[in-house]
Amino acid sequence: MVRRVTHEGAECPVARAVDVLGDRWALLVVRDAFDGITRFSDFQRSLGAAKNILTSRLRALVDAGILEVVPASDGSAYHEYALTDRGRDLFTVIVALRQWGEAHLFADGEHHSELLDATGARPLRRIAVLDAAGRALTASETFVRKVSHESA
Amino acid sequence: MVRRVTHEGAECPVARAVDVLGDRWALLVVRDAFDGITRFSDFQRSLGAAKNILTSRLRALVDAGILEVVPASDGSAYHEYALTDRGRDLFTVIVALRQWGEAHLFADGEHHSELLDATGARPLRRIAVLDAAGRALTASETFVRKVSHESA
Repeated sequence: MVRRVTHEGAECPVARAVDVLGDRWALLVVRDAFDGITRFSDFQRSLGAAKNILTSRLRALVDAGILEVVPASDGSAYHEYALTDRGRDLFTVIVALRQWGEAHLFADGEHHSELLDATGARPLRRIAVLDAAGRALTASETFVRKVSHESA
Repeated sequence: MVRRVTHEGAECPVARAVDVLGDRWALLVVRDAFDGITRFSDFQRSLGAAKNILTSRLRALVDAGILEVVPASDGSAYHEYALTDRGRDLFTVIVALRQWGEAHLFADGEHHSELLDATGARPLRRIAVLDAAGRALTASETFVRKVSHESA
């Protein structure tokens, strides 16, 4: 991404994604949802967020189509929160954050939780940015092309 | 990530990453840095953030080792902000956010900026989460293993 671009929020997919997710609670709620948490009380226990904050973040994630409210799996009057397809598609974002954290935010010998494949219980590959031919790219080998309003 | 885990911030690399990056301004500053922005005034113009907010976010990113302060490239008395190796390693996070935004936050026919490879100016591959053998995994084909404090 070597070219300097003027950022117009409406045209930058990163800006739109950050508008929805650029909040520590939102990202941690999504992480917890991937880990199987579905209930308000369990999100609250996991995150230690104040009730009103958690309520507003869950509502925003439902409004953004990332979570949906579903009947409680035990048939009780409670409801639960489940990832939608759009929410499940955030898996790459959460894994990218995890791998960056693993690589840079732990001291040598300091332990952290691990994400493993369910079949072999082995660590995953490091996420890579690949060109159309499958070659790994660094940021300096890419550039952002702004929207041309003249094109179709 | 089907197993329910108790989140202890200290052990979860996602939580540590979000502690540093879970702020819309922090993520957008990193995005701008990848796009070649280096100066306070240019970050400010791009982001429209208040000076005091931008100052605190830049300082936090420097403290986190994501940006470093370097002399201005034009030899003036100003300084600039440059991504460190740790910061450049956030490329996967920014691209994952971009691809998710592209897929889910634009209407059919609505234009957005594109990230292309510098050599062929072609769109990149969609980021995938791969197991050790290179097979693509969904979240439900993975699980999080907590730290065992008994192990070495």
